[in-house]
Amino acid sequence: MKVVVIGGVAAGPKAASRIRRLCDTAEVTVIEKGEFLSYAGCGLPYYISGMVKDQSELMATAVGTVRDSVFFRNVKDVHVRNHTEATAIDRENKTVEIRAENGETETLDYDKLVLATGAESFIPPISGIGLKNIFNLKDIHDADRIKETLASHKALNAVIVGGGLIGVEVAEAFQEMGCRITVVEFLPHILPMMDPEMAMLVEGHFESKGVKIQTGTRVMEFVGSDQVEKVITDQGEFPADIVIMAVGVRPATKLAVECGLEIGPTRAIAVDDCMQTSDPDIYAVGDCAEKTNMITGKPCYVPLGSTANKEGRVAANAICGRDDSFPGVLGSAICKIFDFSVARTGLGEKEAREAGYDVVTCQAPAPDKPHFIPTAKPLFLKLIADRRTRKLLGAQATGPGNADRRIDIAVTALTAGMTVDQLANLDLSYAPPFSPAMDNILAAANILRNKMDGFMDGLRPAEVMEMLERGDNFTLLDVRSPAELEQMRIEGATHIPLGAVRRRMGELDKNKPVVAFCKISLRGYEAALILKQAGFTDVKVMDGGILMWPGKLIRG
Amino acid sequence: MKVVVIGGVAAGPKAASRIRRLCDTAEVTVIEKGEFLSYAGCGLPYYISGMVKDQSELMATAVGTVRDSVFFRNVKDVHVRNHTEATAIDRENKTVEIRAENGETETLDYDKLVLATGAESFIPPISGIGLKNIFNLKDIHDADRIKETLASHKALNAVIVGGGLIGVEVAEAFQEMGCRITVVEFLPHILPMMDPEMAMLVEGHFESKGVKIQTGTRVMEFVGSDQVEKVITDQGEFPADIVIMAVGVRPATKLAVECGLEIGPTRAIAVDDCMQTSDPDIYAVGDCAEKTNMITGKPCYVPLGSTANKEGRVAANAICGRDDSFPGVLGSAICKIFDFSVARTGLGEKEAREAGYDVVTCQAPAPDKPHFIPTAKPLFLKLIADRRTRKLLGAQATGPGNADRRIDIAVTALTAGMTVDQLANLDLSYAPPFSPAMDNILAAANILRNKMDGFMDGLRPAEVMEMLERGDNFTLLDVRSPAELEQMRIEGATHIPLGAVRRRMGELDKNKPVVAFCKISLRGYEAALILKQAGFTDVKVMDGGILMWPGKLIRG
Repeated sequence: MKVVVIGGVAAGPKAASRIRRLCDTAEVTVIEKGEFLSYAGCGLPYYISGMVKDQSELMATAVGTVRDSVFFRNVKDVHVRNHTEATAIDRENKTVEIRAENGETETLDYDKLVLATGAESFIPPISGIGLKNIFNLKDIHDADRIKETLASHKALNAVIVGGGLIGVEVAEAFQEMGCRITVVEFLPHILPMMDPEMAMLVEGHFESKGVKIQTGTRVMEFVGSDQVEKVITDQGEFPADIVIMAVGVRPATKLAVECGLEIGPTRAIAVDDCMQTSDPDIYAVGDCAEKTNMITGKPCYVPLGSTANKEGRVAANAICGRDDSFPGVLGSAICKIFDFSVARTGLGEKEAREAGYDVVTCQAPAPDKPHFIPTAKPLFLKLIADRRTRKLLGAQATGPGNADRRIDIAVTALTAGMTVDQLANLDLSYAPPFSPAMDNILAAANILRNKMDGFMDGLRPAEVMEMLERGDNFTLLDVRSPAELEQMRIEGATHIPLGAVRRRMGELDKNKPVVAFCKISLRGYEAALILKQAGFTDVKVMDGGILMWPGKLIRG
Repeated sequence: MKVVVIGGVAAGPKAASRIRRLCDTAEVTVIEKGEFLSYAGCGLPYYISGMVKDQSELMATAVGTVRDSVFFRNVKDVHVRNHTEATAIDRENKTVEIRAENGETETLDYDKLVLATGAESFIPPISGIGLKNIFNLKDIHDADRIKETLASHKALNAVIVGGGLIGVEVAEAFQEMGCRITVVEFLPHILPMMDPEMAMLVEGHFESKGVKIQTGTRVMEFVGSDQVEKVITDQGEFPADIVIMAVGVRPATKLAVECGLEIGPTRAIAVDDCMQTSDPDIYAVGDCAEKTNMITGKPCYVPLGSTANKEGRVAANAICGRDDSFPGVLGSAICKIFDFSVARTGLGEKEAREAGYDVVTCQAPAPDKPHFIPTAKPLFLKLIADRRTRKLLGAQATGPGNADRRIDIAVTALTAGMTVDQLANLDLSYAPPFSPAMDNILAAANILRNKMDGFMDGLRPAEVMEMLERGDNFTLLDVRSPAELEQMRIEGATHIPLGAVRRRMGELDKNKPVVAFCKISLRGYEAALILKQAGFTDVKVMDGGILMWPGKLIRG
């Protein structure tokens, strides 16, 4: 069996090696345009920041072996042809045309073909985009050029166009190199993978670190004589010695389109759950292939190295006649931004509503460990669920606290289709150095249960702010302690500490709607229950408490 | 409805508060023998080490409110009677007899009774156990007496009897207080919740920190004139200025036994999945109640604050006529020991075999992040699965790397009854600062799949060591690089680096069994496949590689 794999970065080498392992008689050839194989593209921001010292580290195995073509030949018995481009696929004759750097062409036969052509940076057609010092960050060459530019100047003005995952990772790397940074994002918030209130917390953290976040802003032009000097936007001009374009990637599908393979609605190559394309002898894996969202069952495009690896294994199994299938993705993502982690999985609130679910959400800001452990740090956790089935739909977390553990628990629960009731009773490992006795995600699941069971009606802080601004007739009831009140408060709120609510509830109008809150709205919830039991007709809780308040606070 | 709750530490107050929240008309009384309510018993080792400065922190809410009886009255509308002991239950007349500290007795009526009597330290009848400076660590009073003793001396000789969770946590706390510590454990290894090879890694870490671990050792006598001076064991004597007894806890069931409630095989109070005892008007929650292992369906006894909290909620729901049930536990546990985390969930290897499963295990020692991230640390992960159903049965992890995330992913997967195939394809959140592209637990799941699918036969390092000692006729093949070999090697191994195996395999006897390994046995696996494809008849891999070798290594 002759197998040709086009693309040597992540999914391609994985599929190639496994095919050779599973099948004694397979002849496997990998075609790679560039020089490098199996390198960790996700490590590039850390290479720029200097955390990763040498580019060879991104290409080596954990014990320092560089994965070059000699390695693949000796260890994997896979033939690698790098500096070689696949230029055309002839499906009828089952051949691939390739061209070496010196221009020589050749035709390779295949029984099975694996496309692992990856993704390309999207370059918007903006005037001046060809100026010097405007870079993408797609490969090691880009990273080297960026490092050279940073090294040759001091305290550069850097503009990062695009506030997605790559953009924010680069922003942190640049900040550590001493640049003055502006992130320009066209959408109302950076990190569109996050719900707005979560993204706002991250924006606040960026600003606290001196990074300017310029959202709702469209780049009109890059200006400079030879190299870029400023970025002109519809919200003003920004000086720029270096610009990083990070407006997203698109699946590299030229070969697939030209040979007539089916392309999916996300513009990636359509595949079934064995990674087979519309041609049964051609498979597509990694960033060029379309994914399926496990919750909605709909096509989606989430290019990630972690997924590429799994897909490469599934394609290899399928090609070697072994039963396997790839279940799809949840859109899980995570990044580190200074002291914050930002992570998400499943559906966001808006996505969930658009998909037709009866959406219930909760905000659970809380320390990630018992309050008596000095290393406890705040974590802002949001869960999204479906009232009808009680199933979890999504989870998001940010803050200095441990987000990755909670999100990966949610990933596993979502994959299993768990209800919030099942989630709330998980026997998670517990000891004070690691988590509260009721872990943040269990506490959050219980808030959702209370909401679904009618014990708690929540209002998002943004809704409450609108009610205040409109001058709606309601009592905003702050039940925190006097000491907490002195630190910060919301203008227009009535204050009765929780311990005094039973005694002093006569001060409140029973027939006027009440919205109760505290620091995180756990005491707000208790106050609401006390008032409901006492006959108050309309009592709600402000989700997440004052910690999630999006507006101004009176401090001191 | 009159509800009496006996016990005010964890599950009791939780049940009491929720009953009052769910039911307007409930009169709820909590009876507590001691002074303190709702305190974090799991924080005691951190109070001893000084990490927690003030005992009030263990009793306060996250915003500093102390949960005393005034708090319960004002906030929860729950009546607390502390310094009061419940002395008898009359099930026929549905009354509880209580006695205050001054000796006055009283009889309380109940419609529903909740037993949350907790657990008691087991005190073995060893000669000299009554000497001064021999302590348990069950409550804040114990902790205060231990702190006083530590403060009044310098560089104490401390002996900790029992190497379970409490014992090892206390050992770390004592080490930080400058004591010379010996942990005496009767079993062959400390932390019996862990499989032996995992426990050995922890023992090694303790020894590297100067803590003496004395396993397989029985305490015969405590000797001293007034206060303890030495501990006499069947393995010699140990000087002791202070002794902590941490040989385990037993459910406090005196009241339950005396009133004739059914006691389970674990000696805890038998309950159904609504926490109802054999008397439909009596519920038992927390450390006095028996648990069900979710995997085997069998009774077990795992007293933990995290479980107590969940059970309190379920009992409250049941008492208030709301549909709910507690699904059981997985025996999840975690602790921090100096630089190591130690965590586990589900069945251990021996438990799984005893339960009749067709057990497959894997060892996956690997960095917890990509090798190019400087904060990457080793994590030793073990998974246990059933070959027939391909279901995960258990997971254990230790080392300086992040164990809690991987174990809690396993907890969630076990709860859902996932196969290792489902586990391997989880869309976990991925970015280099958090995990490798193929997270450790996904890589481990793939090793299990390879074993189940017949691509890999594993041998435990301890088995290989026995084969060497017996002088079995086999080739132990080390495929690491020459540089790695120089650092450490196993005596008697043949060395061919992986990259040279295809070329040099003629040096090996095809008909002699081969056991291949490398640092973690990923390359060992590749070498085994190469040899199998070349016609070697019996090729196995040493699980976990040289990193899991339990015997002597030749270094340098």
